[in-house]
Amino acid sequence: MKKRSPCPIASALDIVGDKWTLLIIRDLMLGKRRFSEFADSMEGIPSNILSERLQRLCTSGLVERRHYSSHVRRYEYMLTKKGEELLPTLQELARWSHRNIKDTMKPPPPF
Amino acid sequence: MKKRSPCPIASALDIVGDKWTLLIIRDLMLGKRRFSEFADSMEGIPSNILSERLQRLCTSGLVERRHYSSHVRRYEYMLTKKGEELLPTLQELARWSHRNIKDTMKPPPPF
Repeated sequence: MKKRSPCPIASALDIVGDKWTLLIIRDLMLGKRRFSEFADSMEGIPSNILSERLQRLCTSGLVERRHYSSHVRRYEYMLTKKGEELLPTLQELARWSHRNIKDTMKPPPPF
Repeated sequence: MKKRSPCPIASALDIVGDKWTLLIIRDLMLGKRRFSEFADSMEGIPSNILSERLQRLCTSGLVERRHYSSHVRRYEYMLTKKGEELLPTLQELARWSHRNIKDTMKPPPPF
């Protein structure tokens, strides 16, 4: 992936700067593991976007996947240490949002 | 703007979930105030995207603008309290990125 600048914020957004990627990471932090579980989240991520984002997260080293059956495309996804270390960012974002945006729910653990 | 869900992370990403918006907020936190200053940042934001994002940030209450000359479209932009409160999120994102993505610079103050 092309880096836009050496700025750490820009470099992070090169990977997670869209409406969906941090929701997949949220779901992984909440214990979800499978494509169908991410697809079932209430925001209704389109499956082509979900596929592309999971691929990008694996390529970027935030997520690993492993087969859980011999069936084609039956993978489980897990956060790597690099992915897990986004927790404080998501916690701060969730706190900001709950304080500042109307009708948002209180962040559940681990947020 | 339509809310995708009551999840605070999703609601935040409805506003700032793209490659550019948090860079404009970064620039405001670094003291930039004018359209041309944001446009000059090293990531090279296209001016039509910059216009649209500034408009959205004003509509969402994260940024205020005021005329600084009588010339059409001569505005200065400032973070509101709601916008300023994104600082801890940006600090955590910058720290994560500097630790985990190669060739990113150390975040300058206030990050």
